[in-house]
Parts: sequence; structure tokens; C-alpha cells
Amino acid sequence: MSGLAARFRALWDELAPVGRDERSGGYLRYALTGPELRLREWFRGQADRRAMPVTEDGNGNLFAWWGEPEAGGAVLTGSHFDSVPHGGAYDGPLGIVSAFLAVDELRAAGVAPARPVAVGAFVEEEGARFGVPCLGSRLLAGEIAVDRAAGLRDADGVSFAEALGARPAGARPELVGRFVAFVELHVEQGRALVEADAPVAVASAIWPHGRWRFEFTGEGNHAGTTRMSDRRDPMLTYAFTVLAANKEARLRGAHATVGRVAVEPNATNAIPSRVTGWLDARAAEPETLTGLVDAVRAKAAERARRDGTEVALTEESATPLVAFDGGLAGRLAALLDAPVLPTGAGHDAGVLAAHVPTAMLFVRNPTGVSHSPAESASDDDCAAGVTALARVLKELTCR
Amino acid sequence: MSGLAARFRALWDELAPVGRDERSGGYLRYALTGPELRLREWFRGQADRRAMPVTEDGNGNLFAWWGEPEAGGAVLTGSHFDSVPHGGAYDGPLGIVSAFLAVDELRAAGVAPARPVAVGAFVEEEGARFGVPCLGSRLLAGEIAVDRAAGLRDADGVSFAEALGARPAGARPELVGRFVAFVELHVEQGRALVEADAPVAVASAIWPHGRWRFEFTGEGNHAGTTRMSDRRDPMLTYAFTVLAANKEARLRGAHATVGRVAVEPNATNAIPSRVTGWLDARAAEPETLTGLVDAVRAKAAERARRDGTEVALTEESATPLVAFDGGLAGRLAALLDAPVLPTGAGHDAGVLAAHVPTAMLFVRNPTGVSHSPAESASDDDCAAGVTALARVLKELTCR
Repeated sequence: MSGLAARFRALWDELAPVGRDERSGGYLRYALTGPELRLREWFRGQADRRAMPVTEDGNGNLFAWWGEPEAGGAVLTGSHFDSVPHGGAYDGPLGIVSAFLAVDELRAAGVAPARPVAVGAFVEEEGARFGVPCLGSRLLAGEIAVDRAAGLRDADGVSFAEALGARPAGARPELVGRFVAFVELHVEQGRALVEADAPVAVASAIWPHGRWRFEFTGEGNHAGTTRMSDRRDPMLTYAFTVLAANKEARLRGAHATVGRVAVEPNATNAIPSRVTGWLDARAAEPETLTGLVDAVRAKAAERARRDGTEVALTEESATPLVAFDGGLAGRLAALLDAPVLPTGAGHDAGVLAAHVPTAMLFVRNPTGVSHSPAESASDDDCAAGVTALARVLKELTCR
Repeated sequence: MSGLAARFRALWDELAPVGRDERSGGYLRYALTGPELRLREWFRGQADRRAMPVTEDGNGNLFAWWGEPEAGGAVLTGSHFDSVPHGGAYDGPLGIVSAFLAVDELRAAGVAPARPVAVGAFVEEEGARFGVPCLGSRLLAGEIAVDRAAGLRDADGVSFAEALGARPAGARPELVGRFVAFVELHVEQGRALVEADAPVAVASAIWPHGRWRFEFTGEGNHAGTTRMSDRRDPMLTYAFTVLAANKEARLRGAHATVGRVAVEPNATNAIPSRVTGWLDARAAEPETLTGLVDAVRAKAAERARRDGTEVALTEESATPLVAFDGGLAGRLAALLDAPVLPTGAGHDAGVLAAHVPTAMLFVRNPTGVSHSPAESASDDDCAAGVTALARVLKELTCR
């Protein structure tokens, strides 16, 4: 193991226990809950250790500065701490840990950057607590109304404003305008780097994607005594819609997933009165995505008529195609001799790309699995990620 | 409104607020939780008010005695307090309230029974907390192993023994043997009495029925980045199985319902690693039920092969056909001039029928809906139920 890989492992081990579920081996690090708050404290400790002052943006996002925060032309790196339920260790924290280590590498090499470097930790990237992914970066960039964000509620009815302890500040154009570039390092969420036999890649684009909530309503009733012909069972409409979404996505070369469901009353011996299913859909082109969602909507409505149920569709979030700054991606790919790949996953980098020249680096994930405890990356590949990020930061701050 | 209907309403109103969810209008009265414990206190208070000593059977079941508990040849009536999630007000409590009022009617008429009457309140009839319906009556009758019952856990991991505060006593043959008859009054869970234009019916039989747990396992992964062809998504196998259960039940004139599901991790942007669905299935004949469950199992396994998932099936409970004592049912139907009906719903009466001559009375439900806030019965029909139960208790205790 290289010295850098060992330094990575030592820092990584500090985070490993925080929010880990012993049963699943996955993480429960929801934004602004105990484990994520401990990771934010860890962030402040790491910044302190490096004499990097920390600022907050009033939206729950943290920034640790190497160089004067008020100086213009800063280069931003970093990622997020929060996880999906029982998610992996790398999705998010890898970008923050790698950022601190890249600063260490540059300092150890005696690099004196001409511009400040900011290490960012964005809040609620996964949307696992309040339902809207990239909530922190959307607020910072002014891409979600403050009232809507403030009023988003978690499963216990706690609002984002309550969890934050204040009404979010919303758009901070003077802060966003201070960044001349944003580079987010992230574990890869597929197997393209395994197939390319490379530890690090540069992102070209993020597929357009979104979340749609299907509410199926019928009539709650007794499972034992209600004749099949008298039923208005929304679980049937839900099940049909799950299969339709899968089929329509395959037909279009798109991605569709129903990974979350809520049932009322959710009792074995009761026909449900309501079933809510969330559709995650993504495609390479916006028109494919629209066609996919329209087709699923039509199939659900047709089946609802047969089942005597009703269906209502709500778009919870929609993210257009993000083409990362082509010049920047090409420059970094050449610098690192790395492949360039698109991805189906949303990131804070995708939100900020409309406001700041933005790039992403991906680190190889041998299983290709993510949003699961099986997500992984070797220490050596993580060290290669740190090295790549340090080179990128040097390139962007010293030229 | 008759005097009896008014007395019914007054007593009913004492229970109405306990465990009621303001949003749904339904009840959350899970066995041995706060609301159900308050109803048990109410039971003791009603028994006290009537100078009826209360005994417990060591399994969580309560009995209030009119007459000497130790005397043989007692007639048992009563039902249960616990509800399904967001269930109706009548399923269970109606049988207990009616029993106390029937005792009042007999006393007011100067009836001096030759045998004791016991009013019973059985624990965990719905199985909504610990998963096994009729848990209290199964324990009392020795129809479930004490170790299994003690170790059943609720969603928070609390065992039945912990909730009860002791290891259950299990079979109490000396207590069961003391009962010469059990008559459970219950709200009807269908519309047969509406169609028959009668307020009260006598039960002939309970369909054989059971609960089967399907566990579908696949590979948790990222919803955005995982190619459709690389997925092993257990939600697809679940959805197919829901539709197959519906179709196979319709083909056989049976009932099948999947009203409860649990998903891991249940996140919008994650392909699930595991989906658990519970099948409730019922049919008029045992061989029809077996054929139904076998067909659903085969369809699920076939689909799992296509989805790259795995499926495991566990029988959680199975209740054979219960033919209530034909002589007793006929005698009560003649006494009350009431129709005789089968039902698809399980009851403590179905468990005890193998040990004690048992009958059931049903009270008309205008909507036919149950296990839902829409479940209902008019005060006049409830009064007719009390009158019928009082006549039955007089018939069984005074002859």
C-alpha cells in the first residue's frame, strides 16, 4: 500500500463507524440527523487541523477555505455526507475526504496556489430525508424556491427549516460568483471504469432525470370477506405500473425504477385504501424521458379504470440534461489521461454546472454497485483519485 | 331511538376516542399498546360496575364473570379490542360492549341464569402487532407453541412476552373445559345482511384461510446508473406476484390479497435489495386454497428466474375450515329467526370452535366495508344485536 493509500485509509477509518447499521452493513446518514451532524463536526475538526476557516451559506452547506474566503476566483471541490437508507460508505464522503487529502498533498509538495481552494460539504444531496435531491446546492444556486424548500417535511413531519434551525437563506449569487470552477470527485456508480481498466474518469454529462410520485387510491376493505368483483384495490394498479415502467424503459434504452412504496393501512388482512409509489426515470435525451413518463402515466391510468381505482401523478423533481463544461472536461481528461464518461446519477455538480464551470472525477467501483452496502473502492484507487484531484486543483489554481 | 339503542350509544361513546387517528378517522389499537391497554382498563371498570370479578388466563386474555368463576358449565361471550392499522370502530369492541349490555338486559329482566356467563376480551386477534392472528385464543387453546408465541416480535423488535410482561401460560385446558358454549357477536364484514334485509345473522362456517410471507431478494443498486439488463430487481418479482395472486384467486372463486409490503432500503433512487409481501388467501374448500397458494408460488418462482431474483415462501398462519356446531347454529337461528351465513374472516370463535361448542352472531354493516374507517353499524342494529345476544345467553344458561 502506498503512503497516500495508508493516509487515505487512516482518515477513512475515522468516518467508518458513523451512522453504520450493523445488520445491513449500510449507512443511515440522513441530512441533519445525528450521524450526519457528527460528520459535519468531523468536517470542522479536519478544517481546524489544517487551519482552514469554515463558513456556512445559510442553506446548510459548509465550506472550508485554504486561502482567504473573501478573495475572488476560488476553486471549489467537495461533495456530501448524507446517504440513502442503508447506502454505501463512498457515495458522498469520498469526495470530501479526497478533497482534504488533496490539499495535504499540495501543501506537502510546497504548492502555493494563486487562488483559494474551498472544500464544500453540501446538505441533503440524496433527498432521502426531505424528498428533493441536491437540496443544498439547489438552494445555494437559487434553483428551488425558499418557501418550498423550507416547508419540505421528513417522514416524522419535521420541516427542512426546523431541521436547519432557520429559514434557508436561498440563492447566494455573490458566493457562487466567487467560484471560477467546481470539481466534484465521486465513486463511480457503474462498471465503466472496470471495463476501461482505469482508476479515474472525467464526467461528460448527466442524463436528464426526475422523480414522479404515483398515488393510487381505492377502497380499504377486509381481505377475507370482500368479493374479488367488489374490490377497488390500488395495490393491483401499483403492481401493474411497476411492470409497465420497467417494460417502457427497456423499450427506450432508458432507466426506470420503482424502489419506494408506501401503503395505507399496510396490514396483511386489509385491502389497501392507498398505495403511493415513486418512479425514478432517466434517459440520455430529454424527449426519451418525457416519452417514457407519458407512457407509464397512460398505462397506469388505463389499468386504474379496470381496477376501479384512481391515480394521480406528481412530478417531485426534474433535472434537465447536464452537459459539463466541454473545455474543462477535455482539459482534465488530457491532464489525467483519463476516459470521459456520461452518468445517469444526479449530483450537486449537476446543479452548479449551470452557474460555475464544473467537472466531475469518478473513482473506480469494482462491483459497480452503489446506493447499497456493496458499494466499494480500493484504497489504491482512492489514492489515485486523491492524486488526480490534487493535480486538477494545482492546474486550476496555479495557472 | 329505543332505550336500548340509547344505552348502547352512551357506552359506545366512552370507547370512541381511544386510539382514534384524527387524520384517517380509523383506529390504531394494537394489542398491549397504550390505546388497547386503556380499553382493557375500561373493561375492568365495566366489570367492576357490574360486580363481575375479572380473571386473566396468563396469555393476555381477560374474563369478567357473572356468577362464580370456579363453577362449571359457563357460557362464554365477548370478542377483542385490538384493531388493524386504521381499522374501524366495530370489529372487536362491538362484541364486548354488546356482551356487557346483554348482561344488563338479562339482569333488568330478572333472569337468574343456572350457569355462569363470562365476558371475554381476547388479545391480538388481528395479528396486526405480532403477525399471528387470534394469538390469545390460540395460546389459551394450546394451538400455538408457547415458545413461538413468546418470541413473536413487533415492528420495533418488542417480543410478545415482553409486551405481556411474562412468558405466556399457554394451553389452559381446565379453563377451556369449563365453557359449555362460546358465542361471539361481531359486526358483519360484507353485505349479506343488507341483501337479506335482516339486522342479525348466525354464522355457519369460516372459510379456511392463511397468511404467507413472500421474500423476494435481488441486488440493491443505484436507480440511475444501473443498466436495465444488469438489474436483479425484486420489486418486479413482487409486482408480478401481486397480479398473479389476484388472477389465480378470481379463476378459483377464492380470495387473495397482498395488502402489506416492506421494502429495503425503500428509497426512490435505489433498486431494492429485498421486497417482502404478505399474501392473505381464503377459499370455501381447503383444496381450493392449497391450489391457489401453490399456483401463486409457482408463478412467483418462474418470474424470479426471469428477474434474476430469489423468492422464499413462509406460511405464517393457516386456519382450517371451521364448521361451527351445526346443532347450536340451527338452534340459535330458529330462536332468533335469523339467516345463517358463512364468512371469509377469521375470529377467536374459529379457534375455540375445535374445543367448545361455538356460534357467532353477525350485526348488519350497511357499507359492507371493514378493516377501514368506513366500517359501520346503526345504533338500532347494534341494539338488535344486544337483544339477540341476551336471548341466546338466556337460552344457553337457563335451560
